[in-house]
Amino acid sequence: MESSVASPFAARTAASVAFLAAALDRRIPVLAELDPEAGLAVEKVGELACGGKHIRATLVHVAADRPAGDPPREDVVVGAAFDLMHAGFLVLDDVIDRDDFRRGKPALHAVIRDRAHRLHGLDSAGHHGNSVAALAGCAALNSAIRMVAGCGADSGTVRDLVLLVTACANDSITGEFLDIHHSLPGVEPSPGTAEYATELKTAAYTFQAPLAAGAIVAGRRGDVRTLSEIGRHLGLAYQLGDDINSITQNKDESGKDPLGDILHARATLLQEHASRIGVWDSVVAAAHETDDPRGKVEKILLDSGTIAAVTGLRDEHVRRAEQLIASGPDHGGPALSRPARDSLAAVAAAIRGHSNA
Amino acid sequence: MESSVASPFAARTAASVAFLAAALDRRIPVLAELDPEAGLAVEKVGELACGGKHIRATLVHVAADRPAGDPPREDVVVGAAFDLMHAGFLVLDDVIDRDDFRRGKPALHAVIRDRAHRLHGLDSAGHHGNSVAALAGCAALNSAIRMVAGCGADSGTVRDLVLLVTACANDSITGEFLDIHHSLPGVEPSPGTAEYATELKTAAYTFQAPLAAGAIVAGRRGDVRTLSEIGRHLGLAYQLGDDINSITQNKDESGKDPLGDILHARATLLQEHASRIGVWDSVVAAAHETDDPRGKVEKILLDSGTIAAVTGLRDEHVRRAEQLIASGPDHGGPALSRPARDSLAAVAAAIRGHSNA
Repeated sequence: MESSVASPFAARTAASVAFLAAALDRRIPVLAELDPEAGLAVEKVGELACGGKHIRATLVHVAADRPAGDPPREDVVVGAAFDLMHAGFLVLDDVIDRDDFRRGKPALHAVIRDRAHRLHGLDSAGHHGNSVAALAGCAALNSAIRMVAGCGADSGTVRDLVLLVTACANDSITGEFLDIHHSLPGVEPSPGTAEYATELKTAAYTFQAPLAAGAIVAGRRGDVRTLSEIGRHLGLAYQLGDDINSITQNKDESGKDPLGDILHARATLLQEHASRIGVWDSVVAAAHETDDPRGKVEKILLDSGTIAAVTGLRDEHVRRAEQLIASGPDHGGPALSRPARDSLAAVAAAIRGHSNA
Repeated sequence: MESSVASPFAARTAASVAFLAAALDRRIPVLAELDPEAGLAVEKVGELACGGKHIRATLVHVAADRPAGDPPREDVVVGAAFDLMHAGFLVLDDVIDRDDFRRGKPALHAVIRDRAHRLHGLDSAGHHGNSVAALAGCAALNSAIRMVAGCGADSGTVRDLVLLVTACANDSITGEFLDIHHSLPGVEPSPGTAEYATELKTAAYTFQAPLAAGAIVAGRRGDVRTLSEIGRHLGLAYQLGDDINSITQNKDESGKDPLGDILHARATLLQEHASRIGVWDSVVAAAHETDDPRGKVEKILLDSGTIAAVTGLRDEHVRRAEQLIASGPDHGGPALSRPARDSLAAVAAAIRGHSNA
């Protein structure tokens, strides 16, 4: 999504990635000398943090809104920290979901598990892989906060950034707690819970906090509230779009099993809407059929108007974000340059366009 | 150890515990309403953080050296944060070691596992308990750093404290990585590794960082280096004493299986010394015998002079700590009041006295 639309800030995002890669390149050999597995684990964290789409780092840079050609500053470090924190949560998420692959490559816990089995003949290699991965996830979170604390901004800014980043990590962890809990047999999420979990996991952590961090690091505290509000709408719209995509797109396009959310009883915004209008039970029944379950699920969701309603809700969130993005500071909008405003508007448009590119 | 010796600072440690308990009491009902398991997990974290001996909080208060009767200040919050962080690491440690009990009560992962099995009939309840516990451990670490960031000290002090706490968490995680790695079949820790792991896990995290944090929060940055040095000696001495106690004391006294470190091939300072003088292989063989293995292990370690040598090393570290504690600031010692100096000296004496009380 963001790679194509945020080009004025792509150089700063690239600087964040380079900063992170250099920090890890200094750390990994020292650690690997002591403990080859820990070295490998941190290398995998780095692969995750330096790969991917860097949506969080990009949003930091759009909101920080430094002029093109400005030398690397604290915003570069803060963007890197968000990418690192995200890598840590991906590692934990894969352990929790017992997902052995991430972005088409073996997940960290699987790499360590298979190595311990191969080199050491360890019987409890699965537990061992999970242990190393859980520590690596914690280490990434801790190092991300440490990176923010040492970013070089004045100490008042650092304090505000640490408070922001730890609040956002807390939101993400709470969202993950809710996800785990809702996957228990017999647990029915109460109405509104999916929206809340989405606010925590997607809106707060992926959109609101990076945008707010960008404003703080640039010394524009007055923009934090508006940018957070924009981030909330973008995050909810993104998740609503993702819920639709996971049903209507092929696995190759969406990167997810189309029926995964339904079969694993995950509380999604789509599920919440379908429950409200009384079609969710038939959706779950259709998902368990052997003959073309996805076609049947999609038909129920289309015929009942669920997809149209959720699409409408997504577009409404995008529209509200766009209104705020277009407003000047005197009308409740952020104090952003034209290129930053255009980049944010392009993110909003990409979310409306269903694009995962 | 510290409860009996640090009485002038006991009231401030109690204030730290009360602060932490109040913070958790506000958080738990909100979380439990959304997710009873997460509420229970945080309640268990609180039980660990508010129980125990509070050595870290006590050392923060001794080093901060506030006069008796001074109202609660930032030092109270920072002491609480160290206790909270420690609770998070205990939770992770129990998951990693598959230890179902901690301080005689079920460990967090065991509580969640048994509840999920009982209430939800979950087949993968073990994995589920570990997942919730890993998240709870991360949440405790994150919340501890957040607590430090919001402690109310001036922002320069906050930045230094966050850098200190994240460095110390990083040390603890690295020490845990090394522990896990050394427990792999066929991995022989290289000489010096046990000492390094002890510096990371015990000295840095339990003694050095809390003492340094106390000096920073009190605005006495000039004391950080000396107090860290004192903490390093106390930490190494403590661990050497613990290694001896785990062999020579009964399980009820030391709280550990006397042969646990040997049977699990943990890299300890005792093992390092016994390897150096060539008796370690016979110690391991004795530990695997069926008839009185502990008596045989103890005899080898006594007869070979290992216990005397390790005891001597412990006492040498205590002596160096005592020298620094007794020195005034003009002679390389810390700028502490008489009660603080006495409290630190009492900690050193307790470590020499083998006391776990």
